[in-house]
Amino acid sequence: MASPGKVYLIGAGPGAQDLITLRGARLLAQADVVLYDALVTPEMLQLCPQAEKVLAGKRSGQRSLAQQIINEMLVDYAHKAQLVVRLKGGDPMMFGRADEELRALEAAGIDVEIVPGITTALAAAAATRQPLTKRGIARSVAFFTSSTAPEHSDHDAIPETDTLVQYMGGREAIATAERLLAHGHAPDKPVVVIENVSRADQRIHRMTIADLTQGLGTPQGPVLVMIGEAMRPRPQQHVDTAISNTIAAQLRA
Amino acid sequence: MASPGKVYLIGAGPGAQDLITLRGARLLAQADVVLYDALVTPEMLQLCPQAEKVLAGKRSGQRSLAQQIINEMLVDYAHKAQLVVRLKGGDPMMFGRADEELRALEAAGIDVEIVPGITTALAAAAATRQPLTKRGIARSVAFFTSSTAPEHSDHDAIPETDTLVQYMGGREAIATAERLLAHGHAPDKPVVVIENVSRADQRIHRMTIADLTQGLGTPQGPVLVMIGEAMRPRPQQHVDTAISNTIAAQLRA
Repeated sequence: MASPGKVYLIGAGPGAQDLITLRGARLLAQADVVLYDALVTPEMLQLCPQAEKVLAGKRSGQRSLAQQIINEMLVDYAHKAQLVVRLKGGDPMMFGRADEELRALEAAGIDVEIVPGITTALAAAAATRQPLTKRGIARSVAFFTSSTAPEHSDHDAIPETDTLVQYMGGREAIATAERLLAHGHAPDKPVVVIENVSRADQRIHRMTIADLTQGLGTPQGPVLVMIGEAMRPRPQQHVDTAISNTIAAQLRA
Repeated sequence: MASPGKVYLIGAGPGAQDLITLRGARLLAQADVVLYDALVTPEMLQLCPQAEKVLAGKRSGQRSLAQQIINEMLVDYAHKAQLVVRLKGGDPMMFGRADEELRALEAAGIDVEIVPGITTALAAAAATRQPLTKRGIARSVAFFTSSTAPEHSDHDAIPETDTLVQYMGGREAIATAERLLAHGHAPDKPVVVIENVSRADQRIHRMTIADLTQGLGTPQGPVLVMIGEAMRPRPQQHVDTAISNTIAAQLRA
């Protein structure tokens, strides 16, 4: 029996086709099989016309494959093909379930290499022109997500850093805002919410923590919530979206 | 007088030539001028053979330009050239002094666009195969740096997240380790130190917080310190560097 292939865990970045790395694009163009998650955009899959493309994705609120099934698919494909790509939105090593997939592949003796991707927070910082760190203002940044699992329901998920970035924060917005206020953050502290960053339907909303307590409705795409003094626009910054006080209505529109 | 050019603030990523984005590489190939910082590698500059290349860098312990001078250079070049790239190691929006440069360019009425880069922490997670988040183990990550400036000397710079990543942490290692212990982190909590990530001279050192109290000597390249349970190797993980208990000696060698 032939020796198994190699699996590359590749970060696709936020969605725009040209925000993947050169290394990621080269491997996609050589892949026999690409197992992609639900956050990977159709334009990204145009980089691997030769490959067998398989949706192996998890996404809240939609029908999705259990992680265990995805792990088994990865091992199975590695036994059938030489170059297997596991393509994930953002970066695989932050909020990407890489641990589970690495364990499964290592247990099966399959060689794995990881190619980093642009994580959503940095694409959002670029798109909104708001640096996450600022001299004298913000020297630390935390990336977090909230879990709605019962075992975490009393977990206080607000880190104590100068800038805060919540991944997948759309549905949790009210709870996040209330926890921020309970932690003593000022109601007028600036917040930037970005939906579908880097894509054609990207939307940027500027508000405050007080506004965030009104919630964000039911956004259609992935939502990132950035909080902190570093989110305050600069005096001569061109802010290319309307400053919105009726956020929920806008996001529902 | 001709209208000024456009400035692109581009993240070069950690150093390997193929870890820049497709967008970044395309703009480099079109640039008239590239102002690069001290962390940009020579192989990255091979992507812009046509451009005038100008070192405009700051690096601790070496002769470097003041930020004010760099800001003025950016504005000056934008008045002389159509496509100016400001190329920075890692990502420009995290620990990249983007705020100062954006303010200067905006004050001069110059159009700016930002292209994100792979930040060092995510390249390090990929190179060491240690995800920064793990289900049930690590749901939050902080990126921070310590300042040795007097006004920060009593600032407690250890965020309260599951995983901690200290940028430019080489010289601060002993102070960081002592602060971690004072915060109640266990002495045997795993630490991964990575020097020159993604480059030919990349070095990975696995240790504990107790080891870190011995310091890291005087590393030659940029050093990232990653701390937390997420840094513990998996049972069947192939750890491709020796586990070192004589770290300072190794880094000095």
